[in-house]
Amino acid sequence: MLAIGDELLSGRTKDKNIAHLAEVMTLLGIDLKEVRIVGDEPHMIADTLNTLRRSYDLVFTSGGIGPTHDDITADAVAAAFGLPVIEHPDAVARLETYYAGRQMEFTPARRRMTRTPKGASLIDNSVSVAPGFRIDNVFVMAGVPGVFQAMLSSLLDVLPAGEPLKSRAVPCPFGEGDIGDALGAIAKQHPNVVIGSYPKFDGERYSTEIVIRSRDEAALDAAALAVGEMLETIARSRGD
Amino acid sequence: MLAIGDELLSGRTKDKNIAHLAEVMTLLGIDLKEVRIVGDEPHMIADTLNTLRRSYDLVFTSGGIGPTHDDITADAVAAAFGLPVIEHPDAVARLETYYAGRQMEFTPARRRMTRTPKGASLIDNSVSVAPGFRIDNVFVMAGVPGVFQAMLSSLLDVLPAGEPLKSRAVPCPFGEGDIGDALGAIAKQHPNVVIGSYPKFDGERYSTEIVIRSRDEAALDAAALAVGEMLETIARSRGD
Repeated sequence: MLAIGDELLSGRTKDKNIAHLAEVMTLLGIDLKEVRIVGDEPHMIADTLNTLRRSYDLVFTSGGIGPTHDDITADAVAAAFGLPVIEHPDAVARLETYYAGRQMEFTPARRRMTRTPKGASLIDNSVSVAPGFRIDNVFVMAGVPGVFQAMLSSLLDVLPAGEPLKSRAVPCPFGEGDIGDALGAIAKQHPNVVIGSYPKFDGERYSTEIVIRSRDEAALDAAALAVGEMLETIARSRGD
Repeated sequence: MLAIGDELLSGRTKDKNIAHLAEVMTLLGIDLKEVRIVGDEPHMIADTLNTLRRSYDLVFTSGGIGPTHDDITADAVAAAFGLPVIEHPDAVARLETYYAGRQMEFTPARRRMTRTPKGASLIDNSVSVAPGFRIDNVFVMAGVPGVFQAMLSSLLDVLPAGEPLKSRAVPCPFGEGDIGDALGAIAKQHPNVVIGSYPKFDGERYSTEIVIRSRDEAALDAAALAVGEMLETIARSRGD
């Protein structure tokens, strides 16, 4: 994923799209491998996109497709592909209808939102009409979270769904320091699962959430059993 | 910044450190230029870190320095620098004292938290003692937000402070489509400021926050005045 916008790097806006995309990809069984956040700099956007689209099967972008002068994503994406920018006829038609119906003027600024690289197909926007677009393996979407989410929803039937990664979360009242050695041993004994441990700190003491992930249900059960027994052993040794 | 952790890419954990670092950097007058999020893959972490540390003056990392088997950041950072990993003597001393005082065992797992590349200096952790570390221009910090924030605080006197970017936020009741053309013209007339416009959507209609940024106070005033007049003109034309 490539999240675009100076506002994300200045701290003015807290990104919500990365976590949403991550959740949806996990549900679909698609592994999100990398996220980058860059500012509103055309060359930086184009270079980063070229790296990502050549490294990964799918790339999703957020931000920079609105009607103002700082919305430069369509141009940067077109530059990355070496394509001209056009006003997409179907996008023009959608926005003409939309603004005519609301008796709002279809200003040159609003017309900017119809610009796509030549050959792109549109991504529906059920919230505010102005579409995103897809070109090759790159899906260009809005930065406003509600609109990003609507656009991503419209893609759910199009995206290739993999075998979903199954996961078991095992809450653990002990800190990572108490379980690290035993958990490392279990991880070695169960090569078909990935065991993550996520420390929580409530201001006074640590606890841990242990998460076991696998595409293999039986391997998952075996590892979860081993973790449960390990936690019981520690609890007993403390007289809990 | 490099944020490290499978949990960020699976959607299980919503990152809070990126926005915090962004805010602190903005206050210090340091431009945050790029953020990358990668999973717990040693080569990916090392390669990404090498790219970032050669491209930028400062690099901050979050995540992967705890006591469990999936905490591999110290090793990956050492690999990136081609350095061996040691148990940092000062870190060992701090943790020995800490666990002795709490009558907790200094397990091999906890001892993992003293590992740094050879030659690193420690970053204080006022919350839970186990330190981060600095090597060259790379600052390696924890992923738990409270600890990340404490570590970053301890660096405030060390980091080079630039001239802070001043900003003016101008709330705007109109959507971007209504102001885009006029705002683009103002941006051209005021080259010493950066004008961002951030659409907000409440489910029914768009409004916009216009943010003007500059290191030059006078240029900021002039641009803010022009934006204010533009908004008044639009409001009058609508009979508001």
